[in-house]
Amino acid sequence: MVAVFEPSEYQARTSRAQELMGQHGLVAMLLTCEADVRYYTGYLTRFWESPSRPWFLVVPAIGKPVAVIPSIGAALMGQTWIDDIRTWAAPQPGDDGVSLLADTLRDLAPSGNIGLPYQLESHLRMPLGDYAALQAALPDHSFGTDHGITADLRQVKSEAEIAKIATACTIAGKAFADVPTIATIGTPLSDVFRNFQRLCLQHGADWVPYLAGGADQAGYCDVISPASDAPLQEGDVLMLDTGLIHDGYFCDYDRNFAVGRASAVVQQAQHQLMEACAAGLEAAQPGATAADVYHAMHAIVGGSDAGRLGHGLGMQLTEGLSLIAEDHTVLKAGMVITLEPSVATQNGRLIVHEENIVIREGGAQILSPWSKPELEVI
Amino acid sequence: MVAVFEPSEYQARTSRAQELMGQHGLVAMLLTCEADVRYYTGYLTRFWESPSRPWFLVVPAIGKPVAVIPSIGAALMGQTWIDDIRTWAAPQPGDDGVSLLADTLRDLAPSGNIGLPYQLESHLRMPLGDYAALQAALPDHSFGTDHGITADLRQVKSEAEIAKIATACTIAGKAFADVPTIATIGTPLSDVFRNFQRLCLQHGADWVPYLAGGADQAGYCDVISPASDAPLQEGDVLMLDTGLIHDGYFCDYDRNFAVGRASAVVQQAQHQLMEACAAGLEAAQPGATAADVYHAMHAIVGGSDAGRLGHGLGMQLTEGLSLIAEDHTVLKAGMVITLEPSVATQNGRLIVHEENIVIREGGAQILSPWSKPELEVI
Repeated sequence: MVAVFEPSEYQARTSRAQELMGQHGLVAMLLTCEADVRYYTGYLTRFWESPSRPWFLVVPAIGKPVAVIPSIGAALMGQTWIDDIRTWAAPQPGDDGVSLLADTLRDLAPSGNIGLPYQLESHLRMPLGDYAALQAALPDHSFGTDHGITADLRQVKSEAEIAKIATACTIAGKAFADVPTIATIGTPLSDVFRNFQRLCLQHGADWVPYLAGGADQAGYCDVISPASDAPLQEGDVLMLDTGLIHDGYFCDYDRNFAVGRASAVVQQAQHQLMEACAAGLEAAQPGATAADVYHAMHAIVGGSDAGRLGHGLGMQLTEGLSLIAEDHTVLKAGMVITLEPSVATQNGRLIVHEENIVIREGGAQILSPWSKPELEVI
Repeated sequence: MVAVFEPSEYQARTSRAQELMGQHGLVAMLLTCEADVRYYTGYLTRFWESPSRPWFLVVPAIGKPVAVIPSIGAALMGQTWIDDIRTWAAPQPGDDGVSLLADTLRDLAPSGNIGLPYQLESHLRMPLGDYAALQAALPDHSFGTDHGITADLRQVKSEAEIAKIATACTIAGKAFADVPTIATIGTPLSDVFRNFQRLCLQHGADWVPYLAGGADQAGYCDVISPASDAPLQEGDVLMLDTGLIHDGYFCDYDRNFAVGRASAVVQQAQHQLMEACAAGLEAAQPGATAADVYHAMHAIVGGSDAGRLGHGLGMQLTEGLSLIAEDHTVLKAGMVITLEPSVATQNGRLIVHEENIVIREGGAQILSPWSKPELEVI
């Protein structure tokens, strides 16, 4: 099913953005990345996997957003609430939509400040040479920060969005519950990875953009490696961390499994990780900051090479706030975040655990099936 | 299995780039995107799915590339041939690796021109604000185009790379051969999509970053939509187009299936598409241009809303040249491309067909199992 909300949701998002644009003196915002474009339009396609074509969405000071996109996307964009769709035959050497975009921006605002995502975690998905050409074509406009308007709005999810993330979490939970059927002593880790993705699809994932993990004695050395063909051995801790998609929304959590037996060190680690998650859950109240949640967890497990103890989640695998000492984002009801502590076990190995929650008035709600304090032995 | 070639392959790539850098007067190249970083290092991870952290690779005028990366990646980068790995705890508000990158660039070249991917299909994967800060921190350097050095080098594949793409094509071919087991009259298209991805994994795909398709009477309206829950009906043409990954390399081709029966219009379309692919294959000789291949196919099927009749392929689903009238890239042995003609059938619907080939001296070699001139009926 296509992840299209009611037009009123996109209208409300646009109106909120336009109010903030007014406060910051922006005559338009220019968006080029998948999640930002989808946030205002509902335009959902895996075609962004192809880097060949740029896609532009302009949010004007008033009125609906305007899409300036390759002609290959016209039919699908035409199914959204957007009605001003301007296309060119991309990719086109020499002028790959730049003059069409410049004309569009000039139509919508003859001059003024145009905001772009500018801060942490953002990038401009168009060639630098084309960005320079765009600026040169619009001497009466200036290009600069969007003051984080879209990123901030995206952090607080609607109930419709939360429901989609919750479903993604439920699907992953069913796949994790089936891991004992696909992983045992002797199974190559690469087979575990392939078959775990098959389980995610079987239980309803639309696709599985992210799977990482590891397996080694009493922990693993890093959490972002692709799978090797090494067979699981007794005493390994197997970790699988997935970001699967349901209707355009991610879950992002992992599970650990003790292969054959669970040593005291490993069980102690699991206890400590779940204690840290419980502390994070307790601290994750509206009005607290990301740093408050970090400190609550850090008191139990200390820091991490991952650089943070959790993060926001939604249309992207990771988005928005980071659970670090330096992030003073104030939590609001509707924010969906991960709690992701890790502990060192032995010989430079670690175990990472992750849960997904949504901030609610009166206390955070758990979205991932909360793990037990004991590691499951497979 | 991790897609790590012998260090000599990365060394050779780096040396070729450095020779071109010398010709263009570049003291360093700065790379920020997954495929470019992997091209020189072998650094393969699905963690790029997370947008939160920037990753930097600096190719100096002489010597090995230097990685400036988040600490979460240090262990995995340490397994590549790179030995100068500088890390910071990302994400870090205020200074997310910018000063470390500036110091590194200054270490490697106290002044001079730094090249970045600048043209069609490229982007800078770091925040615009950080890019401005980097430039301000390095007043003795200038930042500009890399003259397409990395993009051009990446177009010509080594035999080791071609073998990986060929394996990806073979895996997809097995999955396509099994489509009759998962799709029949009444099957919801969304189930077909899920189960086709499961087949890809079953036959050995590491993951399935891309699947698109469509199903409607005698064709479909666009080729990038997500699957609806609508059941397949007699007279539909079902299309599945996949980019699956083997050891970090893509295939990218599609197959069409006639549901229940194939009308004369649909069979005529398939004949025409295969004729266009044959003409493209024949034209795809070393020394010919991308435009020559385009014209050979265009003479049979005309143009397309997709904007091109094929493209390069490799570490990305689409990369490098486009089969359009305006692309005069000269074909060289080792380039891997797709032939992707489409024809209109009726009521605004179209059928798209795609094959993957590698340019060879004496004639292109087919990588995807070449389709028959008749559409398969399921």
